[in-house]
Amino acid sequence: MNFAIINGKLVNRSEAKVDIEDRGYQFGDGVYEVIRVYNGKMFTVKEHLERFVKSADSIGITLPYTIDECTALLEELVTKNKLVEGTIYMQITRGTSPRNHVFPARDVVPTLVAYTKEVARPVESFTHGVKTIFIEDIRWLRCDIKSLNLLGNLLAKQKAAEQGCFEAIQHRGDQVTEGSSSNVFIVKKGTVITHESNHLILKGITKEVILQLCAQNNIPVEERTFTLDELVAADEVFLSSTTAEVMPIVEMNGDKVKEGLPGPITRKLQTLFTLEIEKQCGRLK
Amino acid sequence: MNFAIINGKLVNRSEAKVDIEDRGYQFGDGVYEVIRVYNGKMFTVKEHLERFVKSADSIGITLPYTIDECTALLEELVTKNKLVEGTIYMQITRGTSPRNHVFPARDVVPTLVAYTKEVARPVESFTHGVKTIFIEDIRWLRCDIKSLNLLGNLLAKQKAAEQGCFEAIQHRGDQVTEGSSSNVFIVKKGTVITHESNHLILKGITKEVILQLCAQNNIPVEERTFTLDELVAADEVFLSSTTAEVMPIVEMNGDKVKEGLPGPITRKLQTLFTLEIEKQCGRLK
Repeated sequence: MNFAIINGKLVNRSEAKVDIEDRGYQFGDGVYEVIRVYNGKMFTVKEHLERFVKSADSIGITLPYTIDECTALLEELVTKNKLVEGTIYMQITRGTSPRNHVFPARDVVPTLVAYTKEVARPVESFTHGVKTIFIEDIRWLRCDIKSLNLLGNLLAKQKAAEQGCFEAIQHRGDQVTEGSSSNVFIVKKGTVITHESNHLILKGITKEVILQLCAQNNIPVEERTFTLDELVAADEVFLSSTTAEVMPIVEMNGDKVKEGLPGPITRKLQTLFTLEIEKQCGRLK
Repeated sequence: MNFAIINGKLVNRSEAKVDIEDRGYQFGDGVYEVIRVYNGKMFTVKEHLERFVKSADSIGITLPYTIDECTALLEELVTKNKLVEGTIYMQITRGTSPRNHVFPARDVVPTLVAYTKEVARPVESFTHGVKTIFIEDIRWLRCDIKSLNLLGNLLAKQKAAEQGCFEAIQHRGDQVTEGSSSNVFIVKKGTVITHESNHLILKGITKEVILQLCAQNNIPVEERTFTLDELVAADEVFLSSTTAEVMPIVEMNGDKVKEGLPGPITRKLQTLFTLEIEKQCGRLK
């Protein structure tokens, strides 16, 4: 049997339902996280839960559990579902209340939901890289909040998929922001460049790990906005996300990035990232 | 007993639940309408359902019912719930499918939900008007789609409520766009001015009725963007929405609009709007 958590209780996944006036359903009034599980162990769980609390706090939702309690709940879920390699999806909404834009009274309990899914590492794509398109970023100006308002991201990702691509790289005018579900990095003359973490992008947990790995391994980094021209002229391009890890981009808008193969710094970061996973979660197959 | 509709079937409202992987719950991947009921009759239902289809179409969701079938479903709901004065809330999402930004296969059925609520006309506020604040518009650039991604609207409305106000008037820089759940109008030297219906605002059904009433009654109208300075210097200000109808704004950011009383053109439009309701739905009390 597969389980889910609703408000602290384990339920059969098939019974995990919410009321149609849950504010998540009517307004996208909530935030979420996706946490990677390798060898039955959660990777960077502390960082994810801290961001979860921060996102919730940004829109005035108070998590009814401590981070330790959350961790214990998620560990129980992973164990119960015998999850070895996969993801935990969790979200919290402002709860169920008669529809009104104004926040409900404080006694309305936020809805916390979590469930798991088996997901293999995309090893094939790690080796060969992925294709991308460019798309104008039309999202709101608080992309730092990992909220459930994802329609802009969906429309971008769908457009990429329709063109046989894995990801859409978004840009506001000339400035590259991020992918529809990833952060974007370029490498130029040995320096790794990625958008600074402000209100225009999500501060990716994988991004942060990569920046730490760069620092520890003397790979120069610039966190700053970069232009579409810089993107096109880059020596290497890659993206990062919880499930895509360090993913080489080998084609953009139909044009190959350099020779159309993952570059040396991208490959080095893939290796370092894998070692970091193994440090936290044990040897990978 | 109170009923709701889920996917064409009448169910007990308390049993109206959706799966946690309904795309409306995880992404806000859907659109909605609120339809006003007076004397048990739906007001401007055709216009609302046409916009519903259009919004759905903008994000690639095909309504599995014709407008006539929808109308019949909603009429049945109103009758079953013995609704005399209130609202119908309806929304459609892309359906339930394993979480993925990319749209699911075409055989995934969209989730259509509808329920009703008793709501009285805010007659007290019609007479005395409401207070508002100004707030920077941080929403995405497709506000013409009546989508479930409403977090920007919620945060604006909540800020207004915390300051004892009914509505937040949003502006992008110097340009006034719309309220968090309403369109905004100013009157200057007898001319009614309101933002043109483009991607920055919702094309309100009530707004459109008001513009028709202006045309029929020789009240000059300009549909164009206007500035915060023009807003502050206006002779009259009012907002419109399905439930607020023609609502005078008598205070903005703590400052009275003129004498702090509803102006003559606002009051005239209120009368004309009430007559329009009575034409479609019969005599109001």
